[in-house]
Amino acid sequence: MSASNASILPVELSKSYRLLNHGPTVLVSARHGGVDNVMAAAWACALDFAPPKLSVVLDKSTRTRQLVDRSGWFAIQVPTLKQARLVHEVGTHSAVDDPGKLERAGVAWFEQPGFDLPFVAGCSAWMACRLIPEPHNQNTYDLYIAEIVGAWADSRVFRDGHWRFEHAPSDLRSLHYVAGGHFYAIGDAVDVTP
Amino acid sequence: MSASNASILPVELSKSYRLLNHGPTVLVSARHGGVDNVMAAAWACALDFAPPKLSVVLDKSTRTRQLVDRSGWFAIQVPTLKQARLVHEVGTHSAVDDPGKLERAGVAWFEQPGFDLPFVAGCSAWMACRLIPEPHNQNTYDLYIAEIVGAWADSRVFRDGHWRFEHAPSDLRSLHYVAGGHFYAIGDAVDVTP
Repeated sequence: MSASNASILPVELSKSYRLLNHGPTVLVSARHGGVDNVMAAAWACALDFAPPKLSVVLDKSTRTRQLVDRSGWFAIQVPTLKQARLVHEVGTHSAVDDPGKLERAGVAWFEQPGFDLPFVAGCSAWMACRLIPEPHNQNTYDLYIAEIVGAWADSRVFRDGHWRFEHAPSDLRSLHYVAGGHFYAIGDAVDVTP
Repeated sequence: MSASNASILPVELSKSYRLLNHGPTVLVSARHGGVDNVMAAAWACALDFAPPKLSVVLDKSTRTRQLVDRSGWFAIQVPTLKQARLVHEVGTHSAVDDPGKLERAGVAWFEQPGFDLPFVAGCSAWMACRLIPEPHNQNTYDLYIAEIVGAWADSRVFRDGHWRFEHAPSDLRSLHYVAGGHFYAIGDAVDVTP
């Protein structure tokens, strides 16, 4: 456990959709048969409030998808500005033909008690996800639906059910990928009052 | 047509996923039987590159969903920082029980030749979407899948297949909703070089 894990606190499941609501690029990790892997995904989205669900697109060519298909579980995590290079590395190389990608990207794992899943250290939020099997969606659209059954966040940047980007160190901001190595960090808060 | 429509240019369909890739909150509009409506949606996501597809969650209680169910078409548009109040208004009130919501929110429509859809003026990007009927997803998850068959953007902020938020007026930045009237605008560019 790294020192920064001291600030990780559970997130109420009823508020977990807020970890994804602003549309960050995420990391998808999974474990099966002693193999852990992680990939980046821009196409992840909240799907329901209660019980909380999400959707994520997992290309057929990825090792992570194979692990999800076999285990029925995955983790979604929200990486930070500081991790931009890691996100790009695990998003552009596949462990299928590049077994050194995790080490080169500097991925460090940690565990959450009660879940047999690999979580990526240094992110701002993490969700443990149980696959809801939907073979038609998975085969036709590469679309995976899951229930969020555990959620945690770095309390420096998400606390009491709200992101606090404007009050946290700027290297904890979320990343929003476009293409070709080009991301945006999340920006200023905008409040609409009644 | 408003003066700002002079800067609207078509977007190559193969690049249209980039309009959504960074996870903005969107407006969903639809038309049927002489009725136009629009709602806000944070749960919209790219789904495929070619042909381009997207997914969006449309709650059963919404008038816009009724129009989509009847017409098989909808438009997705990316609103701007300047439209934060409009987005919040059409996201928190339903035309089902509040018929004055569009006027109060200040929604102005425009047309795109060849599409029988209402597009919201003043956004930064627009997509014409043809529903791919998936009754199980629609009924079980409120999840709608569509093919993007037309795309346009305000060339001041999206040009040559790329967002240019860092070079455009700041009030054209995309909005990313969390909850309770709290949004973030998209922020600084982050480039990862090989």
